[in-house]
Amino acid sequence: MSGEDAPAQQQNAVDQKQETKPAEEPKAEPPKTEPAPEGAAEAAATPAAATEKVPEEETFTYRALVLTGYGGYDKVKLQVKKGKPALKAGEVLVRVKACGLNFADLMARQGLYDRLPSPPVTPGMECSGVVEAVGEEVTDRKVGDKVMVLNRFGLWQEVAVVPANHTFLIPEGMSFEEAAALPVNYITAYMMLFDFGNLRPNQSVLVHSAAGGVGIAATQMCKTVKDVIVFGTASASKHETITQGGVTHAIDYRTKDYVEEVRKISPKGLDIILDPLGGSDTHKAYNLLKPMGKLITYGAANMLAGQKKNLLAVAKNWYHQFSIHTLSLIQGNKSVCGFHLGYLDGETELITQAMDTILDLYKQGKIKPRIDSTWHLEQVGDAMRKMQERNNIGKVILTTEPMPEEEKKEETKKEDKKEDKKKEDKKKDDKKKDDGKKEEKKDDKKKEEAKKEEKKEEEKKEEAKKEEK
Amino acid sequence: MSGEDAPAQQQNAVDQKQETKPAEEPKAEPPKTEPAPEGAAEAAATPAAATEKVPEEETFTYRALVLTGYGGYDKVKLQVKKGKPALKAGEVLVRVKACGLNFADLMARQGLYDRLPSPPVTPGMECSGVVEAVGEEVTDRKVGDKVMVLNRFGLWQEVAVVPANHTFLIPEGMSFEEAAALPVNYITAYMMLFDFGNLRPNQSVLVHSAAGGVGIAATQMCKTVKDVIVFGTASASKHETITQGGVTHAIDYRTKDYVEEVRKISPKGLDIILDPLGGSDTHKAYNLLKPMGKLITYGAANMLAGQKKNLLAVAKNWYHQFSIHTLSLIQGNKSVCGFHLGYLDGETELITQAMDTILDLYKQGKIKPRIDSTWHLEQVGDAMRKMQERNNIGKVILTTEPMPEEEKKEETKKEDKKEDKKKEDKKKDDKKKDDGKKEEKKDDKKKEEAKKEEKKEEEKKEEAKKEEK
Repeated sequence: MSGEDAPAQQQNAVDQKQETKPAEEPKAEPPKTEPAPEGAAEAAATPAAATEKVPEEETFTYRALVLTGYGGYDKVKLQVKKGKPALKAGEVLVRVKACGLNFADLMARQGLYDRLPSPPVTPGMECSGVVEAVGEEVTDRKVGDKVMVLNRFGLWQEVAVVPANHTFLIPEGMSFEEAAALPVNYITAYMMLFDFGNLRPNQSVLVHSAAGGVGIAATQMCKTVKDVIVFGTASASKHETITQGGVTHAIDYRTKDYVEEVRKISPKGLDIILDPLGGSDTHKAYNLLKPMGKLITYGAANMLAGQKKNLLAVAKNWYHQFSIHTLSLIQGNKSVCGFHLGYLDGETELITQAMDTILDLYKQGKIKPRIDSTWHLEQVGDAMRKMQERNNIGKVILTTEPMPEEEKKEETKKEDKKEDKKKEDKKKDDKKKDDGKKEEKKDDKKKEEAKKEEKKEEEKKEEAKKEEK
Repeated sequence: MSGEDAPAQQQNAVDQKQETKPAEEPKAEPPKTEPAPEGAAEAAATPAAATEKVPEEETFTYRALVLTGYGGYDKVKLQVKKGKPALKAGEVLVRVKACGLNFADLMARQGLYDRLPSPPVTPGMECSGVVEAVGEEVTDRKVGDKVMVLNRFGLWQEVAVVPANHTFLIPEGMSFEEAAALPVNYITAYMMLFDFGNLRPNQSVLVHSAAGGVGIAATQMCKTVKDVIVFGTASASKHETITQGGVTHAIDYRTKDYVEEVRKISPKGLDIILDPLGGSDTHKAYNLLKPMGKLITYGAANMLAGQKKNLLAVAKNWYHQFSIHTLSLIQGNKSVCGFHLGYLDGETELITQAMDTILDLYKQGKIKPRIDSTWHLEQVGDAMRKMQERNNIGKVILTTEPMPEEEKKEETKKEDKKEDKKKEDKKKDDKKKDDGKKEEKKDDKKKEEAKKEEKKEEEKKEEAKKEEK
């Protein structure tokens, strides 16, 4: 395993001039869980560290998740990188504590997200951690600062180099997990509701996947405005949680037609609809808008069916892709907006403004990220599965804490069981995808393909195990 | 001349039960310029009034502009209607003082606006006047109230019956002309900028036709927000006026490419673009948006070329009609909104809220309608022409004040001169429409058509004169 897969933004440290020795730097608040400086802990595990004093740039190693190709959960592999990443002016090096999972990461794994460079590449749009080194011209961050980070990609690793203005100070009392859960979901919810949506008192909002990361953030944001009615879709088992979280009317989209349910309560329709689904759901949303209503579409989750790229789902989504004529907008007095934080990476000012407001709301106790579960880097596949299969309530988090040895062994034992479970899941998955009568034949084909896929996966898993050792 | 062309909403008074005698009603502020009650002034001009006491319902007459068919300026004719319109519960009868002209009226004349019922019908979406009678269940309006009125159509006449909640009290110090100029333009500008646009300090806005009614209203509205930069297009002769009115950068769209001009000053693009043009200009606007930018399209003025329906222009506009896919919106982080007040007529609450804010701004001296010119009902053709040929700066108004006899004679003399002028204008018009080399041949055809049209017009003018006598 070498560092050859390192993303473009993180040059190998060989040609790096600058040195950052912790002894020279003020360490106001040394984070308790920080590993030994200079990456010694990891370095110890590699043969290089066994030799006598070698320049830090060479002994420095860190673990990184790397997307090795497009496909299933196993395409994201844990690798060890060598060499301390170089810091350019304006950049900081962050020792990562926790990372957030986002839908874009799942899309990216299937090759459906064009903001991630081609594999091999490290995914990850958000993380939290501690500043371990600062580049020239960085004035507002110092070593030891606890920060959350927002970046186009490259944050699912133990060490990340990012522009200082992509970091935000973690407020007092916020955990690293919360901090890793906050940036993408809350900026997304904030900008959709308060910039495009222009949310005001007494309005009504539809939040799809109300138990997901953006869904929970959006619900909390809605509740910061007086008398806003939140319609939230989620499977029935999550209704209690989302209702406690602020959803006024929880709708089980699996057993009920959410359009009908909304119309029963709000016959005239809705003021704002957040649409992460795409395809035919965007059409439904458009028709469900009141005059002066705003439809804000921010994804195409309908394209994600199964763990690998599902051409049928993608094609269906494209076929149903919403296209709107201005005349219809004029006659309906409607607004259609598109949002994706991943395409806003040049807009530092906008994002910083949003983040300032969000952190104020956090300090006032009005918002609080909800963590669904935390996984070790080794478990990224399971973490992604949990999110993709919509089994989460809140944010799915990766931690860079090393996995205890006994857990690792447990994990290996579980592998076989998991394989069995996977087969079951796959069957369920296929069933879910069955849109009705027409597609039965296609489904048979899919099952066959799925079986083939599983065989391939088993082979790959074997490979992966070898690699990790 | 009879009342047979009366619009559907104004039933003939024959089956009307309710009587409204001014003597029985409190007249706190009798409007000075109000004609003699009971329509006596107009009635005197008709033979019916010469006979002895006849029930008011029958003697009541009033002048009304009526669109008699789709086509040129001469399609709107002045007629005299008989019979007092009936008042239903919740309605008021308004003695109209002044009416506003809007682009929708011009579109409607050509058959391009589906909110106006088929001819014969009285156009007119806004007017000001004095409440002359109130129907049952009307509690917040009383006889003598000075009001401005917003309605789907039917206001270009001396007497209009409208739902009481379509009227708004005219604030102290506002003239009837200003009041007739206010509702459509200011509600449109307000809702576009502050509801869809979510205008905030330091943002940049492009206002097309900045010297038009909506343009001036939008510019004034922009200036109520701190440090907003307004780009305004208008022909050079209007630049001084619009700059004094608040436009930061005036652009002569006739001699310069407005996209280039904007990019020179604001390379990243704009936050809000108000687009009344449609067609290819909507595409340009979309590309000129910043991330998180909002394009608000509210018309298709590009369809209006020449005084009659120009099939070429309509086809071109349709061909270039903007259609947007959600994926493009998502990747651009953009918003596309459509607005037209004519399709919001059921939204009393929204409109009343907007109007309250607008009237507050008026009282604070922050906005003030600018009147371009005021015309007698007899001159409606010239008034429409002035607006359609973009020779106005501000609002074109019709007054119901009777036209002095000498002016009428003047008007008749002018007719011949006007015909000559029209021919000249027509030539200019054709020249303007010439989009370049490709269309030269088509233009020749148009000129021929134009000549034919002029002949028809002359014939019709003759007819119209006979009718008016």
